[in-house]
Amino acid sequence: MHIGLLTGGGDCPGLNAVIRAVTKSLLHDAGARVTGIERGFLGLIERRTRPLDWNAVSGILHQGGTILGAHNAADPFRWSGAGGADVSAQVLDYARELGLDALVAIGGDGTMHIAHRLHTLGLPVVGVPKTIDNDLLHTERSFGFDSAVAIVAEALERLETTARSHRRVMILETMGRYTGWIALAGGLAGGADVIVLPELPYDLQAIARHCQAREQHPGHTLICIAEGARPADGAMTVRTHLAHSPDPVRLGGVGEALRAQLQPLLSAEVRSTQLGHIQRGGSPTAFDRVLCTRFGHHAAHMVARREFGRMVVLQGETCSSVPLAEVAQGHRTVPLDHPMLQAARCIGVSLGVEADAACHAQPPAAA
Amino acid sequence: MHIGLLTGGGDCPGLNAVIRAVTKSLLHDAGARVTGIERGFLGLIERRTRPLDWNAVSGILHQGGTILGAHNAADPFRWSGAGGADVSAQVLDYARELGLDALVAIGGDGTMHIAHRLHTLGLPVVGVPKTIDNDLLHTERSFGFDSAVAIVAEALERLETTARSHRRVMILETMGRYTGWIALAGGLAGGADVIVLPELPYDLQAIARHCQAREQHPGHTLICIAEGARPADGAMTVRTHLAHSPDPVRLGGVGEALRAQLQPLLSAEVRSTQLGHIQRGGSPTAFDRVLCTRFGHHAAHMVARREFGRMVVLQGETCSSVPLAEVAQGHRTVPLDHPMLQAARCIGVSLGVEADAACHAQPPAAA
Amino acid sequence: MHIGLLTGGGDCPGLNAVIRAVTKSLLHDAGARVTGIERGFLGLIERRTRPLDWNAVSGILHQGGTILGAHNAADPFRWSGAGGADVSAQVLDYARELGLDALVAIGGDGTMHIAHRLHTLGLPVVGVPKTIDNDLLHTERSFGFDSAVAIVAEALERLETTARSHRRVMILETMGRYTGWIALAGGLAGGADVIVLPELPYDLQAIARHCQAREQHPGHTLICIAEGARPADGAMTVRTHLAHSPDPVRLGGVGEALRAQLQPLLSAEVRSTQLGHIQRGGSPTAFDRVLCTRFGHHAAHMVARREFGRMVVLQGETCSSVPLAEVAQGHRTVPLDHPMLQAARCIGVSLGVEADAACHAQPPAAA
Amino acid sequence: MHIGLLTGGGDCPGLNAVIRAVTKSLLHDAGARVTGIERGFLGLIERRTRPLDWNAVSGILHQGGTILGAHNAADPFRWSGAGGADVSAQVLDYARELGLDALVAIGGDGTMHIAHRLHTLGLPVVGVPKTIDNDLLHTERSFGFDSAVAIVAEALERLETTARSHRRVMILETMGRYTGWIALAGGLAGGADVIVLPELPYDLQAIARHCQAREQHPGHTLICIAEGARPADGAMTVRTHLAHSPDPVRLGGVGEALRAQLQPLLSAEVRSTQLGHIQRGGSPTAFDRVLCTRFGHHAAHMVARREFGRMVVLQGETCSSVPLAEVAQGHRTVPLDHPMLQAARCIGVSLGVEADAACHAQPPAAA
Repeated sequence: MHIGLLTGGGDCPGLNAVIRAVTKSLLHDAGARVTGIERGFLGLIERRTRPLDWNAVSGILHQGGTILGAHNAADPFRWSGAGGADVSAQVLDYARELGLDALVAIGGDGTMHIAHRLHTLGLPVVGVPKTIDNDLLHTERSFGFDSAVAIVAEALERLETTARSHRRVMILETMGRYTGWIALAGGLAGGADVIVLPELPYDLQAIARHCQAREQHPGHTLICIAEGARPADGAMTVRTHLAHSPDPVRLGGVGEALRAQLQPLLSAEVRSTQLGHIQRGGSPTAFDRVLCTRFGHHAAHMVARREFGRMVVLQGETCSSVPLAEVAQGHRTVPLDHPMLQAARCIGVSLGVEADAACHAQPPAAA
Repeated sequence: MHIGLLTGGGDCPGLNAVIRAVTKSLLHDAGARVTGIERGFLGLIERRTRPLDWNAVSGILHQGGTILGAHNAADPFRWSGAGGADVSAQVLDYARELGLDALVAIGGDGTMHIAHRLHTLGLPVVGVPKTIDNDLLHTERSFGFDSAVAIVAEALERLETTARSHRRVMILETMGRYTGWIALAGGLAGGADVIVLPELPYDLQAIARHCQAREQHPGHTLICIAEGARPADGAMTVRTHLAHSPDPVRLGGVGEALRAQLQPLLSAEVRSTQLGHIQRGGSPTAFDRVLCTRFGHHAAHMVARREFGRMVVLQGETCSSVPLAEVAQGHRTVPLDHPMLQAARCIGVSLGVEADAACHAQPPAAA
Repeated sequence: MHIGLLTGGGDCPGLNAVIRAVTKSLLHDAGARVTGIERGFLGLIERRTRPLDWNAVSGILHQGGTILGAHNAADPFRWSGAGGADVSAQVLDYARELGLDALVAIGGDGTMHIAHRLHTLGLPVVGVPKTIDNDLLHTERSFGFDSAVAIVAEALERLETTARSHRRVMILETMGRYTGWIALAGGLAGGADVIVLPELPYDLQAIARHCQAREQHPGHTLICIAEGARPADGAMTVRTHLAHSPDPVRLGGVGEALRAQLQPLLSAEVRSTQLGHIQRGGSPTAFDRVLCTRFGHHAAHMVARREFGRMVVLQGETCSSVPLAEVAQGHRTVPLDHPMLQAARCIGVSLGVEADAACHAQPPAAA
Repeated sequence: MHIGLLTGGGDCPGLNAVIRAVTKSLLHDAGARVTGIERGFLGLIERRTRPLDWNAVSGILHQGGTILGAHNAADPFRWSGAGGADVSAQVLDYARELGLDALVAIGGDGTMHIAHRLHTLGLPVVGVPKTIDNDLLHTERSFGFDSAVAIVAEALERLETTARSHRRVMILETMGRYTGWIALAGGLAGGADVIVLPELPYDLQAIARHCQAREQHPGHTLICIAEGARPADGAMTVRTHLAHSPDPVRLGGVGEALRAQLQPLLSAEVRSTQLGHIQRGGSPTAFDRVLCTRFGHHAAHMVARREFGRMVVLQGETCSSVPLAEVAQGHRTVPLDHPMLQAARCIGVSLGVEADAACHAQPPAAA
C-alpha cells in the first residue's frame, strides 16, 4: 500500500510523535510505502511531497512542531492562492498520480472537514484528532491538550508567587477558542481561585466580590480566563470596551479587558498576562507522547483494515473511531455538570458567577 | 460530620493535592469538621492528629509529599511497635473518642487492605487509590502514575543523547513492583528501543539480537526495564547472578543484572542506571493535579452520600467507586493485548522476546 | 545583635532563598535576633513585623515569591499613603523602638536608593541586589536574572517549533526595563535569529531584510525584543504607532508594535507574544539558588563585620561590596562591545541594525 | 582556512551548542571551511570526517549529545585498537592530507592532554573546556557544569519530599570524579542538609550525630555525597565495605556504602540513590547555552588570531585563554575556604565533619 500523510492546522505538541507512530506502524507491519505531504493540504495543491522511511521519523518523538510543516489556511475547496477557486479536482488527480491508496490526515476540525470532503470524492481517508483546545466531538482527548494544560499550570504557578507576595489579582488568559477546556483543566492544575469559561458567561460583580472577599485574607487572587469567555451582560463586551484600539483581540484580549473592568472595583492591583503561542509549541508531555503513539498506531491499524472515512477517537482508555461526517458537526464544549466543573465549585473555586447552592446537591455525572 | 483523613504507604506525587480537595470539599459543602491523622495508621495507633481547616490545606496543591506524613509499615492488625500484636481495638476506640463519623484513607493496596478491615469492624471508610505503580485493581489510573511516567520519560530522553553520541546501550531501571505499567508508558514516552516488563519474561538472546541489529545503524539502543522483570530462563535469575553481593536488590537491581548479562554479548559499551526514589517524590504533573482534585472531591462526595466501604476509581473519564473488598484481591498487571503493548510492538519496540508475527494480525482491544 | 530584614520592589525568583541564607547565617553564627519586616518599607511605615527563626525560613529555598511580602511603591520619603509626605522620621523611630542594630534590604535600585537615605539618617544598612533585569551598577549579576533568562529561553524554544512548522516570523517581547540583558542572554540561549535591545535602536528595514533573506530558507525567523527597545527612526515610536489605544504599553507593547510594522513588509505571517509577569515569578534556577545563598551569607557576614552602607556585589566569581551611594547613580546597560553581543553578531544573529563588518575585527574585550 | 572540529570524552550538555557557535563564527567571519571529525580522536585515527556547513549546525543549540559523536578512549598515542600502539604519526598525516590549518578540540582533561601533544607535534590546536565536573585548571567554569548542578538540585528537591513525609534520611550520590563541585553546588541549590566532598574526608560519627539531632525535629535529613568522597578513617573504605560484591563502584557506589554504614547508627530509615548518567545527558540549561556560545565564539576568534596551543577559559565574566600545557597538570579541587563552602557551613549545612567554630571567624575569600 502507498499511504500519504499530512499535518494540518495550527501548531500542536505531539504532531511529530504521531507522524512517527503512523509511519513506523505502516512500515513495520504492512511493508507499506509512506509519503509525507508538505505543509498540510498546501502540499497536495502545490505538489510537494517526500518519502518517509524509518530514518526520517526516528528521533522525532520529543520534538515540537511537525517535520512535514503545516499551513493554517490551505483549503483545496476554496484555495486563496487561486482566488478562492475549488482546486480539489487537481488535488485528487495528484493523489492518483502519486498512487496513494489512502491519506492519513492529522489535524483539527478544519482539517477533518476538508478530509471528509476529499474522502467523499473518492480519496480514502483516516483522521487523527489534533487540537490543544480539546474541542473535537466524539473524542475525550485530542493530543496536545495535556501539553497545553501543563504549560498553563506552570504559568499560573509562577504568577501565583507574585500575586501572593504583592497581594495582587493576577489574570492569565489561555487559549481554547469557543470552549473552556484548557482554562478549566489548566486552572484546576495551576490552583486558580477563579476560572472563567465561554460556557458560563461571567458576572463581573461576582468576580469582584470573590476578589474582595480574599483581599484581607489570603490577600491575593489568581484568575484563569479562556480567550472565548464573555460577560453575561452583553452590553459590556470586550469589543465595546476596547473599541478604540486598532485590533482588540490581538491587543490584550479578554484577560486585559477583564483587568480593565475589574481594577476600578478593587483596591488591590490587577495585572493580566496573555500566554499566547507559548501554549501551542514545544515538546509534548509524556502523557501526550503515549497518546500520540497510540493514536498513530491506531490510524495505521485502521488503514490496514481499510476503515476509511473515519477519525481515531479516545473513549475511556480505549481507541476506536467515528465517521468523519460526525466530527465536523460542531464543537465539544464543557458541559455544565462536568466532573471537573463540579470539583472546581466544591473546592471553592469561583466560576465567575454567583456561587451555587450546596455542591453535593448536584451529583457528579457518574454517581 | 467529623471526618478523619490519613495518607498511607510510600511517597507519591499528588498526596497533598488530594488532601486539599477532600478537605476543601468537605468544609465547603457540608460544613464538616476534618481531622488530619499523622503518619498514616501510625497516627491512629499513637494518637497523633491535628485539625485541618481551609488555611491548613491552601497552597499545597503543587507540593510533593504529604503534609500529614506517612508511614510504610504501621499496620494496626500487626503492629511491629507492639511485637506484632493486634492493636486494632485501641485504634477503633481512639476513632470513637475523636468522634469520627468516617475515615478517608489515601493509599495503595496495603492501605486499602487495612482500611477494609477497619471498615468491617465498624469504622466507615472511603478509600482513594494512590500508587505510582498503577497496579490497583478496578481503576484505570491511580494518581502519581502520570508523574512517575513523566520522570522516567525525561530520564530516558537524557540517557538517549549519551547513548546516541557514544553509540552505547543504555539501560534504565524503573519502579513498578510486580507490574510493568511505569516501564511501558515511560518507555513509550521516552522513546525506548527495548521495554522489558514483569508480565513478559525476557529472553536475553532476543534482547542481544535487537541490540546487535542496531549496532551498525543507528548505533545505540535505549532499554527501559521494570524492577520486577525477570528472565524467561528461570535458572538465570537476578538473585543467582548477584549471589555474592550482600543485598542484590539494593545493589544494582535488575537493570544492573541485565547489563552484566548483556555486556559479554555485545561490542558496544552497556551502562545501567537505577532511577530509584526520584520517580516517587516531588511535584505532581498537571494531569495528576487534576486527577487528585477530582478524586478528592469524589471521596468527599461519597462521604456526604455515606457510600462507605468503597474506593474511588476512574473508569474511562468518569469517577465512580468499587467495594474495598474487591480492591485487595490482587494486582492489576499489564494484559498482553493492551493497546500500549500493541502500539509498542508495531512501531518496532522490542519487548525483550522474539518478535511477534505481523502486528495487525492482533487487533487492538477496541477494534 | 538585632537585625531587620525586608524585601522591596517587584517579584523576583530567589527572594526566599536570600531570606533563608541571611537569617540562618545570622542565627547560626552570631546568635543574632532577626525580625522580618512585612511588605518592604510598608512594614516599617505601618509597623508590621514578625520574628524570623530557623523554622520560619526552613524549606523555603525553592519557593518563589517572598514570605515577607513586598510592595512596589512604599517610599518613606514620599509616602503616597500620607499624601506624599516624608514619614522617614517615624520609620527611624520605629526602628529604634524595635531596637534594630541594622537593616538588611533586599531589592533593586528603588530599594537601594531608599536604603541609602535611611542609612545616611543613621540606620545601618546592608543591601542585597535583586532584579531580574540585571541592571544594577557594580555587580555582574543580580539574583533572579538567570531564572528570567531561563524562562525566556524556554518560551523561545516553544515559539521556534511553531515558527519552523508554519514558516512564520515569531516575536517574543521580554522584560528588562531600560536595558537589554534579559533579551540578549535569553535570545542567545533560546536561539533567536534577531535580538533587539534598547542599547541599539533598531532599523526596521534591517530587520525586514533579515527576515526576507530567511523566507526561502530556512523559512522562519525568531525575534527576541526587549520591552525598552525603540526604533532608530525616532518619528516611528511605539507611542506614535499605538496612539489610539488607551494604554499602549499594556496593550501589546513593543513586540506588538514591531509586529504591526513588520507585517506589511513580509509575505510570512508575523505573530507576537508578550511574556509578561511569567518571567518574574516562580522557583529560581539552581544557579540563582546558589547565588542567593552566597549573597545572603555575604550580607550576614557584612553585618557581623559592621560593613554598613554597602551593597553585596558579585565581581567575577567573588562576592564583595560597594557603597550604596554608588549603586543608585544609574543603570548598568549592555556595552556595545560586550562579549555576548559580539558572539551574537559572529554567529549570524541580527541585532536589528545593518550587519557589521567582519566580526573578529572587533576583538572581544578580554583579548 | 580549513578547520577541523572534534568532541572528545564523556557526554556533556552543551556540546552541540559549542559546535554550532564555533562553526557559525568561522563560516560567518572568515569564510573558513569547517570539517567535523567523527567520534573524537577516533575519527582522526579511522579517517572519518564530514563537512560542517551552516545548515548542519542549525537547530542544534538545544539538543543534548554531540552530532559528531564522541569516544571515551580513543588516544592516538596509545591506541587500543592497535594494541596500544602510537598512531599519532598517521593522525598527523591525515590532518595534513585533509589540509587542516587548525583543530578545535572540545573536551575534558584527557582530550586536552592529547590535543596538547598533537599541538607539540605540529598540529595547531585550540581547546574548549568541557566537563560536568568543573575540575579543569584555570577556568572558573566548564560548560555542562551548570546543567549537571540543575539536575542534581531537581533530584534533591524530589527526594526531599519523600524524606520529609516519611521522616527518612535520603542520600543522593552525584558525579564529580575526584572533586566535589557538583555535589557542593548541587547540594546548596537542592537544599541538602549534609554535603560530603572528596576534598573533606568524612567522619561517619559526625554525619550520624547531625542526622540524630534532626530526628526529632524536623525529622528528616537530605545528604548529597560526591562519588569521590571517602571516610577520614582510611580503614573503613568503600572498597573494604563492599569487598564481597563483584564490582563495588558500579554496584551502589559511595552513597550506598554510606547508607550501609549509617543505617545501624540511626532509628530513621536510610535510603540511597545514585543519579548516574542522567546528570550528563540531555539539553543544556540556558546558562550553559550562553556559555557554550561564548566559548565557541571565542575559540573561533582564537583561530582567526592564530592563538594556538591554548584553551579557552572563563575568568570572572571574561573569556580568555591559557596554554594547554598548563591545563593538563592536575585537577581543580574545591578549596576549603571557597565561598560556597563557607556559605554552606554558615547556614548550618554539615560538611560531614565536626562543626567548625564560628563561621565568620573565617572571612570569605573576598573580604
